Amino acid sequence: MKVRLEENAYGKNAVNLSKIIRHPGYHEFRQITVNVSLQGDFESAHTEGDNTKILPTDTQKNTVYALAKEHFTSAIEDFALHLAGHFITTQPQVSQATIDITEHVYSRMLFDGTEHPHAYIGGGSEKRTALIVQNAAGTTVNAGIKDLLILKTTDSGFEHYIKDRYTTLKETADRILATQCVASWNYNGLVTGYTQQFNDIRNTLLKTFAYHKSLSVQQTLFAMGQAVLEQYPSVKDISLKMPNKHHIPFNLEPFGMNNQNEIFIATDEPYGYITGTITRE
Amino acid sequence: MKVRLEENAYGKNAVNLSKIIRHPGYHEFRQITVNVSLQGDFESAHTEGDNTKILPTDTQKNTVYALAKEHFTSAIEDFALHLAGHFITTQPQVSQATIDITEHVYSRMLFDGTEHPHAYIGGGSEKRTALIVQNAAGTTVNAGIKDLLILKTTDSGFEHYIKDRYTTLKETADRILATQCVASWNYNGLVTGYTQQFNDIRNTLLKTFAYHKSLSVQQTLFAMGQAVLEQYPSVKDISLKMPNKHHIPFNLEPFGMNNQNEIFIATDEPYGYITGTITRE
Amino acid sequence: MKVRLEENAYGKNAVNLSKIIRHPGYHEFRQITVNVSLQGDFESAHTEGDNTKILPTDTQKNTVYALAKEHFTSAIEDFALHLAGHFITTQPQVSQATIDITEHVYSRMLFDGTEHPHAYIGGGSEKRTALIVQNAAGTTVNAGIKDLLILKTTDSGFEHYIKDRYTTLKETADRILATQCVASWNYNGLVTGYTQQFNDIRNTLLKTFAYHKSLSVQQTLFAMGQAVLEQYPSVKDISLKMPNKHHIPFNLEPFGMNNQNEIFIATDEPYGYITGTITRE
Amino acid sequence: MKVRLEENAYGKNAVNLSKIIRHPGYHEFRQITVNVSLQGDFESAHTEGDNTKILPTDTQKNTVYALAKEHFTSAIEDFALHLAGHFITTQPQVSQATIDITEHVYSRMLFDGTEHPHAYIGGGSEKRTALIVQNAAGTTVNAGIKDLLILKTTDSGFEHYIKDRYTTLKETADRILATQCVASWNYNGLVTGYTQQFNDIRNTLLKTFAYHKSLSVQQTLFAMGQAVLEQYPSVKDISLKMPNKHHIPFNLEPFGMNNQNEIFIATDEPYGYITGTITRE
Repeated sequence: MKVRLEENAYGKNAVNLSKIIRHPGYHEFRQITVNVSLQGDFESAHTEGDNTKILPTDTQKNTVYALAKEHFTSAIEDFALHLAGHFITTQPQVSQATIDITEHVYSRMLFDGTEHPHAYIGGGSEKRTALIVQNAAGTTVNAGIKDLLILKTTDSGFEHYIKDRYTTLKETADRILATQCVASWNYNGLVTGYTQQFNDIRNTLLKTFAYHKSLSVQQTLFAMGQAVLEQYPSVKDISLKMPNKHHIPFNLEPFGMNNQNEIFIATDEPYGYITGTITRE
Repeated sequence: MKVRLEENAYGKNAVNLSKIIRHPGYHEFRQITVNVSLQGDFESAHTEGDNTKILPTDTQKNTVYALAKEHFTSAIEDFALHLAGHFITTQPQVSQATIDITEHVYSRMLFDGTEHPHAYIGGGSEKRTALIVQNAAGTTVNAGIKDLLILKTTDSGFEHYIKDRYTTLKETADRILATQCVASWNYNGLVTGYTQQFNDIRNTLLKTFAYHKSLSVQQTLFAMGQAVLEQYPSVKDISLKMPNKHHIPFNLEPFGMNNQNEIFIATDEPYGYITGTITRE
Repeated sequence: MKVRLEENAYGKNAVNLSKIIRHPGYHEFRQITVNVSLQGDFESAHTEGDNTKILPTDTQKNTVYALAKEHFTSAIEDFALHLAGHFITTQPQVSQATIDITEHVYSRMLFDGTEHPHAYIGGGSEKRTALIVQNAAGTTVNAGIKDLLILKTTDSGFEHYIKDRYTTLKETADRILATQCVASWNYNGLVTGYTQQFNDIRNTLLKTFAYHKSLSVQQTLFAMGQAVLEQYPSVKDISLKMPNKHHIPFNLEPFGMNNQNEIFIATDEPYGYITGTITRE
Repeated sequence: MKVRLEENAYGKNAVNLSKIIRHPGYHEFRQITVNVSLQGDFESAHTEGDNTKILPTDTQKNTVYALAKEHFTSAIEDFALHLAGHFITTQPQVSQATIDITEHVYSRMLFDGTEHPHAYIGGGSEKRTALIVQNAAGTTVNAGIKDLLILKTTDSGFEHYIKDRYTTLKETADRILATQCVASWNYNGLVTGYTQQFNDIRNTLLKTFAYHKSLSVQQTLFAMGQAVLEQYPSVKDISLKMPNKHHIPFNLEPFGMNNQNEIFIATDEPYGYITGTITRE
C-alpha cells in the first residue's frame, strides 16, 4: 500500500530574544518571541532520512539572534519580513517561510511625569503580534494584538435569543461584558509605519468596544472590525476572537439580600467563544 | 464603504463534565472537556444585534450536561456525534456543528494485581480527543491523542544536514529523542468500536516510535503515520505534531570531566516543531 | 501506637469575585481572588469524622460574596479585616482566621486624556495583595505587590564573586537586571488609607530599583527594603522575593559578529532566586 | 534610622537535568528539577555590594550538572544529600544548604508484557520530591509526592456540619471525592533504600484513600497520615495538602430529568483546601 506526505512544515518555536537599542538619552528595550516555520521540498527527509535539504532548527534560532543585531531596529513586522526573506532567498528548497513574532510590551517607568531612561515595567497580558508568510505568490503581512483584556460594566445586554428545553439563562439588558480579545488584520501589501498603524488601530478597537451599545458579543465584534475597515484603507480584512469572560451575578437571595447588579462570580470556564472575520465587499 | 461578515462561529468552550457509569461490581469514571462551535446564518446578530437566531452558549452548555445522561455511555466519538446531530437537527439556522471533546484519562487503582472498584488515579498529560464536524456535506470523524510525552534514549541521530554561516550544532549519531506528540486521524466514514481502534492505533504509534532507527524527527514522524495507514484501512489520513523536547548534553569539559552522553539539560524553549500529514496515494 | 494531629487548617481558595461600585459619573470595577483559611478546634473532624464544628468551605465562599455587598467598598485590606473578624467572632471554635486577597488591577480606558466612565483594561501580571491574620493575640496586616515585572538595561553589574572549579560565569559591570518581584510588608498595627500607603510604597520600590547602581540582586533588594523602612514609619518590616529573570548575551562570535551588549537570550529557567527580609534595628 | 537584614537566602531554581544510566540490557532514564538555596553570612553583599562571599547561582547550576555524573545514581534523596553536603563543606560562609528535587516519572514502554529497553512514556502530573536541609544542627530528610490526582466515586460523604445564614450546600452521604494530593514526610534520620520506602508509603497512601469510608476530607487526610505513621517507624511525621477538586452534581431538574448522582460539573475554582500534619504522640 502506498502512502504519501501531504502538508508538512518544520521550524524553531519560542526563540526568546531581548534587545537593547541605545538612543541618545535613553535605552529602548524590546523583548520578542519568534517562531520560524519552513515549508518546501523536504520529502526525502521524511521518507529516507536524508537531511541534506534540512536547515536545522538550531541554525534557524542562531539566524534569528544574528540577524537581530542589524535588522531588528524598528517594528516587528519589519524584522519578520527580513527573516522571511532571508530563509526564502538563501534556501532554494524552501518554498514558503512563515515568521510569527510576539512582542512583550515594556514601558519606561514614569516618575513625576518623566520617563526614566533605562528602567521599565512589563508583564501585561496584552501582546503585539506580526505574522509574515512569504512564498512564490508574494508576501502577506498580518499584524495584531493578543490577550487584550478589556471589560465594560454597562452598555451591554443579551436578550431575545432562542429559548428551548435546555434554556435556563435569564435575559438581561445590563451586564458586564469582558473578553481577552485577539485581533489580527491583513494589510493590502506593504505599509510604511507599522507601529503607527498598530497604535491607531488598537485605539480604534478600544474606542469602539468602549462606546458601543452592545446587544451581543457578536454585534460588538462586528462593530470593532467594521470601524477598523472604515478608518484604515490599508487594512484588507480583520479577524477577531472574543472569548466571553463571564461575570455572573451571585445569587444573594438565599441570604435575604438583593444583588443589584453589583456582586459577580468571575469564571474562566466554561466560556462562550465568538469569532469572526470582517472584510470589504 | 461596505464591509461584510466572512467566516464566523460561536459556541461554548471548556465544558467540564464528569460522569459515573455504574456497572455491576465497579464504577466507570469519565471526565471530559467539551467545546461546541456552531456556524450558520448569524449575520443579523452581528450587523443588527438581532439575537433571534442565536442559541445561547449557556444553553449549549446545559445541553451537553443534559444529553450526557442518556448519550455519553461509550466512546467520546459517539457522544460527540450525538451532540453534533442534536444541534444540526434542532437548529435550522445552524449549517455546521463542530464538537471537540478531550478526555482526561483515569485508571482504577491497582492493589495486588486487582483493580479497585471505585478508586482512580488521573493526572496524565496524555489525553484522548475526538473532533466531529457535521454539515450538509456529511459528517467527519477525527480521533486522536494529545500531549503524549514519549522519549527514547538511543536509536536516534541527526547528521548530514545543511551547514551555513550560522551553524553551530554538532552532528550526532546518538541522541535523546523526546516529543510531546499530538496525533489525529480522520476515519473513512463511521467506525464501530472507536475505543478499540483508538487503543490499537495508539499502540502502533508507540511501537513505531520505540523501534524506529531515527535519522530525524521528520523520518520518525513519517514512519509513525505510515505504520498507522498500513495497518488500519479505516484511517484515511493522519496528522502528527512533534515538538522536539530537546535534551542537550551539558558541557562538562570546563570541569575536566567527560560527558559520555549521560548528563543533559532538559529545555522547554526554544523547541523544534515538526508537523506533517500522511495520506494514502 | 499513638499519633496526633499537629498543625492543620482548612478553607476555601480561589473565590473569584468582581464588584461594580457605582459612583456619580463613573463606575469603579474591582476584581479579587479571596482565600479563606481557618485554624482551631477541628480535631474531632479528623479523628472521628465529626463535622459539627466544621463551617463548610462552600459556606465560607457564600460569606465572601454576601459580605462583599456591604463591606468591600475600599481597600482589600479593609475587606480582609472584615472577613477575618466575621469568622473569628461568629465561630467560637475558630482560633485563627487568615484572609488572603489578591487584587487584579483594572484601569479605566483613556481617550484623548479623559478616562472612560465604564470601560477598562486589565491583564497586568502585577497584582496587589493583602494578608490578614487574626487570632487571640491580635491582628496582623500584611500588604504587598506580586508579580511586578521590572527591568533595567544598565546600572547593574555582578563582579568579584567566588570562583571555584565549577565557575564559568563571566564578570560583568553592565548587564540587564530583571525580576518578577514580590514585595510584602507588615504594618505596625492598623493604618488609615491603605491604598495611599500602597501607592506610595510601590512608587518607592520602583524608584529605588530604577536609580540604584546595582552590584548584585542582593544589594538592590536590600536597598529597596531599606528605602521603604526609612520613608514609611508605619511599616514594621518588608520581605522581597526577586527571581532573577536572566537575559544572557547571545554569543555572536561564531558568526564573525560582535555582540556589544545588545542581543540577549531571555530565559525563564533556570533562574536565580534571591529573597530577604529587612527590619528595623 | 537603622535597618537590618533578617532572614535571607539565595540560590538557583529550576535546574532541569536529565540523565541516562546505562544498565546491561536497558537504559534507565531520569529527569529531575533541582532547586538550590543557601543561607549564611551574606550581609555584606546586601549592605555593601561585596560579592566576595557569594557563590554565583550560575556556579551552583554547573555544580548540579557536574556532580550528577558521579553522584546521581540512585534515589533523589541520595543525590540531594550529596549536593547539600558539597555546598556546606566547600563554602564556609554557608550555614545552611537546602536542596529540593522534584523527579518527573518516566516508565519504560510495555509491549506484549515486556518493557522496551530504551523507550519511555512520561507526562504524569504525579511527581516524587525530596527536600534536604543541612546545617550545623544536622541534616533533615523530607520525602514526598506531589500533584497526585486521586479520586473515588463513592464511600465519601459530608454531613452534620454547621449551618448558618450563608449555608446553601446540601448534605450528602454519597459524593465524589477527588484531590490533587501533596504528601511529604520527615524521616527519623537517614534511611537505606529511599526508593523502596517511597514506593511502600505511596502504596499505603493510595490504599487508605481507596478503602476509607470518608465522612470528610479532614478525616481521610488524617487516616492517610495515621496509616503511614503506624506502618513505617522510619517516618517521624507526615504533612498532607488536599485541595478538594469539586465535582458538583449538575441540576437537571429544569429539563425534567433526574440526576441520579451521575452527571457532574468538574470545577477547578474555587476549591476547598484542607491541610494537616500528623505526628507521633
